[in-house]
Amino acid sequence: MLTSKLSSSPKRKKLSINWAACIPIFSLICLFWVYAATAQDTPPTPPLTAEAVQAELNVGLDTLWVVVCAFLVFFMNAGFALVESGFCRRKNAVNILAKNLIVFAIATVVYWLFGFGFMFGEGNPYIGLNGFFLAGADNSPAIGDAYKGVFPSLNWTSIPLEAKFLFQLVFAGTAATIISGAVAERIKFSAFLIFSFLLVGISYAITGHWIWGGGWLASMGFYDFAGSTVVHSVGGWGALVGAAILGPRLGRYEDGRVNAIPGHNMGLATLGCLILWLGWFGFNPGSTMDLNPRLISHIAMTTNMAGAVGGLAATFTSWTISGKPDLSMIVNGILAGLVGVTASCAFVSVPSAAIIGIVAGVVVVFAVAFFDSIKIDDPVGATSVHLVCGVWGTLAVGLFSEADKFGAAPFPKAGLLFGGGIEQLIPQVVGILAVGGFTVAISFITWYAIQAVVGGIRVSKEDEEIGLDISEHGMESYSGF
Amino acid sequence: MLTSKLSSSPKRKKLSINWAACIPIFSLICLFWVYAATAQDTPPTPPLTAEAVQAELNVGLDTLWVVVCAFLVFFMNAGFALVESGFCRRKNAVNILAKNLIVFAIATVVYWLFGFGFMFGEGNPYIGLNGFFLAGADNSPAIGDAYKGVFPSLNWTSIPLEAKFLFQLVFAGTAATIISGAVAERIKFSAFLIFSFLLVGISYAITGHWIWGGGWLASMGFYDFAGSTVVHSVGGWGALVGAAILGPRLGRYEDGRVNAIPGHNMGLATLGCLILWLGWFGFNPGSTMDLNPRLISHIAMTTNMAGAVGGLAATFTSWTISGKPDLSMIVNGILAGLVGVTASCAFVSVPSAAIIGIVAGVVVVFAVAFFDSIKIDDPVGATSVHLVCGVWGTLAVGLFSEADKFGAAPFPKAGLLFGGGIEQLIPQVVGILAVGGFTVAISFITWYAIQAVVGGIRVSKEDEEIGLDISEHGMESYSGF
Amino acid sequence: MLTSKLSSSPKRKKLSINWAACIPIFSLICLFWVYAATAQDTPPTPPLTAEAVQAELNVGLDTLWVVVCAFLVFFMNAGFALVESGFCRRKNAVNILAKNLIVFAIATVVYWLFGFGFMFGEGNPYIGLNGFFLAGADNSPAIGDAYKGVFPSLNWTSIPLEAKFLFQLVFAGTAATIISGAVAERIKFSAFLIFSFLLVGISYAITGHWIWGGGWLASMGFYDFAGSTVVHSVGGWGALVGAAILGPRLGRYEDGRVNAIPGHNMGLATLGCLILWLGWFGFNPGSTMDLNPRLISHIAMTTNMAGAVGGLAATFTSWTISGKPDLSMIVNGILAGLVGVTASCAFVSVPSAAIIGIVAGVVVVFAVAFFDSIKIDDPVGATSVHLVCGVWGTLAVGLFSEADKFGAAPFPKAGLLFGGGIEQLIPQVVGILAVGGFTVAISFITWYAIQAVVGGIRVSKEDEEIGLDISEHGMESYSGF
Repeated sequence: MLTSKLSSSPKRKKLSINWAACIPIFSLICLFWVYAATAQDTPPTPPLTAEAVQAELNVGLDTLWVVVCAFLVFFMNAGFALVESGFCRRKNAVNILAKNLIVFAIATVVYWLFGFGFMFGEGNPYIGLNGFFLAGADNSPAIGDAYKGVFPSLNWTSIPLEAKFLFQLVFAGTAATIISGAVAERIKFSAFLIFSFLLVGISYAITGHWIWGGGWLASMGFYDFAGSTVVHSVGGWGALVGAAILGPRLGRYEDGRVNAIPGHNMGLATLGCLILWLGWFGFNPGSTMDLNPRLISHIAMTTNMAGAVGGLAATFTSWTISGKPDLSMIVNGILAGLVGVTASCAFVSVPSAAIIGIVAGVVVVFAVAFFDSIKIDDPVGATSVHLVCGVWGTLAVGLFSEADKFGAAPFPKAGLLFGGGIEQLIPQVVGILAVGGFTVAISFITWYAIQAVVGGIRVSKEDEEIGLDISEHGMESYSGF
Repeated sequence: MLTSKLSSSPKRKKLSINWAACIPIFSLICLFWVYAATAQDTPPTPPLTAEAVQAELNVGLDTLWVVVCAFLVFFMNAGFALVESGFCRRKNAVNILAKNLIVFAIATVVYWLFGFGFMFGEGNPYIGLNGFFLAGADNSPAIGDAYKGVFPSLNWTSIPLEAKFLFQLVFAGTAATIISGAVAERIKFSAFLIFSFLLVGISYAITGHWIWGGGWLASMGFYDFAGSTVVHSVGGWGALVGAAILGPRLGRYEDGRVNAIPGHNMGLATLGCLILWLGWFGFNPGSTMDLNPRLISHIAMTTNMAGAVGGLAATFTSWTISGKPDLSMIVNGILAGLVGVTASCAFVSVPSAAIIGIVAGVVVVFAVAFFDSIKIDDPVGATSVHLVCGVWGTLAVGLFSEADKFGAAPFPKAGLLFGGGIEQLIPQVVGILAVGGFTVAISFITWYAIQAVVGGIRVSKEDEEIGLDISEHGMESYSGF
Repeated sequence: MLTSKLSSSPKRKKLSINWAACIPIFSLICLFWVYAATAQDTPPTPPLTAEAVQAELNVGLDTLWVVVCAFLVFFMNAGFALVESGFCRRKNAVNILAKNLIVFAIATVVYWLFGFGFMFGEGNPYIGLNGFFLAGADNSPAIGDAYKGVFPSLNWTSIPLEAKFLFQLVFAGTAATIISGAVAERIKFSAFLIFSFLLVGISYAITGHWIWGGGWLASMGFYDFAGSTVVHSVGGWGALVGAAILGPRLGRYEDGRVNAIPGHNMGLATLGCLILWLGWFGFNPGSTMDLNPRLISHIAMTTNMAGAVGGLAATFTSWTISGKPDLSMIVNGILAGLVGVTASCAFVSVPSAAIIGIVAGVVVVFAVAFFDSIKIDDPVGATSVHLVCGVWGTLAVGLFSEADKFGAAPFPKAGLLFGGGIEQLIPQVVGILAVGGFTVAISFITWYAIQAVVGGIRVSKEDEEIGLDISEHGMESYSGF
């Protein structure tokens, strides 16, 4: 009732709202429908033996660990908002901030409605078909064979269902924010909202099911510990397709030259990078979803090492090439290293993590130049960081894995450089190609469908020149300067 | 000795300092007086049975949980500072930042001296009268009947006394920062400091005692899990009275029109919103003060859902009304949803949390317009967010409670919409009215007393036009722009 | 291979890169050399008794606590970056941000290569000589006599080795960021990188060994719980020497006057202060490296109290002196109080913490004036905050300690004001002088060596006037303003 005027008013003039309004309406319909379906039973209290105390307190420890990590990953929304708005122009800052702020709200709703069900619900090797709106049987935190419920692919972590959901939700939100940066400064606000809704709810969830939901890639031995592919390269593929379809910003490529369009606030961008780095301490170590002291310490260590050397490698690479150490390359180098080690952080040694980070830091510098050379205009380098280094990180599992050493279970085969041949590389390559192909296809279809329905996904030339803050939001980011 | 020159110098010319200096002097007097009175005894070590291990480790888990949540809530000071300064004008940014930074320092001192004692100390149903400066007997973390000490209303959480204090302190600090935004851009710095000191130390503590300190509202069955009333609407009432007494900013209302006074930094405001959202994961789930895995997961879930849909609802509401999605409404919608669910987060289902958030998000948009229509000038919308949605959230307990389902104890009766009739609504309404009436009365008295003593709580017209940064602090926020 | 072009290209023209490139090259050489040397064994599973459950879960609790605190301390990098860049001029913002971002990357590499080994490795009372690149025997989390390994000075905390490393690393990183502020706005980027590398890897690690690594100062009873000396005054001495050698910024001191050079972004500076305050909740309570509920609660309490009253004391002091409450003094007062209580936070009562904070807050105001009077130009007051208050905090242990009361073990003797005479003051004074003398000497040698090798550590007059953002990095921090 309260929101019906949003959608059914006969006097509506603004097309954009009509379409964007599908999101809350559809959500509301689902909401009321499922209202009665959500319920949970209290697990019985076990008798008090040392085993029982251990089990009970492990649930406490694991839950505490996972929710704290979820909070850190949630905070990455701020990191993405700041890096992306800092790297763009002042006249589009409100737009980027608004996108990054609202996208997590959208992710929350859609992932609850069906994203989590598609990803982790019982189903077939290709998609989950149970547990929409978190309904259905579930006796978490029971684990292993004792677990009875519709999310068997998450039966290995002894935490309540809602903690599982929360942790997975903040990951899903990350994928959408990655896209935001690549399509910045020219996309319609409403088009971005709809794309995010569909990406998180459908595409991300389906490919996630293949890997983390017990699907076909998991079965063939593909490993991606914390999401170089599941999160980063999925976001990156969506970003690439979006940036390609939208075309470059006005004036970006002229007469064969690449015109630099400098970002407007390096303080925000740097803070954003440090917030993301902080968030990664939740992203990677938290992906244990289990307070394994040695393993989480090791993952925090490999993660930090890869981020640090990624930053150093990118700095010295760009310093060598351009003669000056570029702050935006320090930022992107750190992020590249962090993305790069995300798939393998639990499976590789610290020196291997350093190598992975160095390669990521060097590669990201050349990737930025490469995308410019093919006139894919990605204002913040999201494609270079998340797609390219996400692919690299996924391959790195097949190269550097010594996974029996660090306490992760299950774990991939030894990597090529550690005597394992190409046995682990093969599923990694298959996974990269399959997820990439699927995400690209879905993204193309989705962007074109939105284009057809909304009437164009790019703002007019005039609006782009004025800036999206005024044209899309009617306000300035820095009033009084 | 060191600070005596602050107060007794015969050469003092600046009246404002004299009065503001009462705060440290009074604090110091109290400090020295109580110096010897603070002491604690070490609890004895129990024999090592499974029960003992369980009890000991539960103290560890609970303490870890509560202090981490306290740190998150502490960080909300940064969130308020950024939202409020971002939403105000550049020329008052230093002033708002200074207020928000120092107010937690003041809260720390006054809450230690007597706020915590008034709120949680043994006393009568109307006020606590024990435990000032954390002195007095206390054998925490003993719980229930085993607890012996002067803070019996906190005997249900098995954590050390100083952890209880820390967690409650960061809540008290929040109430004061809420006021800061509503009185921004025209209040004297010294007047705000004194008001904060008195609000946190007396008014907030007394009404808090009624509800969380085992007072008369608690006895009659009023429920406010994490502080929609205790914290948010108390801050909101103080803000409303302050904004009303101060009157609107120069030029805000002219010839029957409302002149928009745009905020100066949307990047800071958006970051502030995300920091607040992060902090709410400590605010609400942490209010268990107990690491109950299922309950904290559920609260994190309801909290996040309400914030997300609050943001979406406010966005689409304002988009429909004004034709453009306004970033400041996304921010305030998210905060509205979070405030709205704060009282009931442990007692309602996820779909109910979504409804609560939607209502809050819609209501906040109209509340902003309403306050402008009655010429209450609240530069950041604090009254709309914290007071209006705080009241809504408190009522929501009486509407949506299904509290037996989620593990909270004790819990309210079933809400009106879940077969409970108006039994739970009645104490909720009584609590809203009682706390509102008391806070308004005390706020009026306090603001007028400060006005009489300090000689006006509002800066001069000239100072307001120049901006408070120069007039009150002698510095600019953005030198060199 | 990948980075060999960084160092060996025959066409290199830019001298600065050559030297800075020593860092990655040296790191890489070490990296490959040690590759095979890093390995760890899995500890055996004990039989399941109440004792075993207790021991196992304590490892979990302690590890969770320490890594969360490490994340908070890591985030202090953002705090330092924002305070320092906010307090400097717009034209040098990129430079300061870049320094603060990359310095933690450098610290990560060098502390792993040899800093941690020098500091905590087995050796003699003056330096550790084992455990470089985290190699060598280590059966952590075994503790006490059960510990067998090369880091016996850390055998008291039951957490995995990599968690120990991570926590110590974030402390080491802090020391380097302190220097960044004092040498801001005129130092060459490459010179700063090299100095940071050497300070963290050698000087900080050696003096740290004396105190926390079981060295000669520890043996004589010197106490510094969380690093007033180990971290803050070491950073402060390095900062003082750097600022003295560099000389003041152009135009800072003219005709006997001190020309104010206002900071460019008070919003970032204030946020930075709050991030640092947040980080201190990891820094001080986390230094237990052990989840002792009562002790961590007490430390959080003393830390917060000292920061709060430090802020109040500095505010009222500067208000009295200058007639206006200066936001930068609120910021520095809070930081002064926090630095001041860092050494003694586990050993003093809450009222004592308040006294320590008040003194620190007053002293920092006069220290800033003092350094200006001797023409040591420290743009952000790092020397006043970290060196002066670090020394004060170290002395405070000898004045206020009542350490038997709060659960810390081992603990210092009673302080002078609590009946202990000067017995504890003596080692404190010796420690301050020894660490100060050593750090000053090494800093002088290092700065002059860098000067000789790099060809000057200060940018040219022209570059300083243009600003380091353009001259050193070729970019602006605020494009479009």
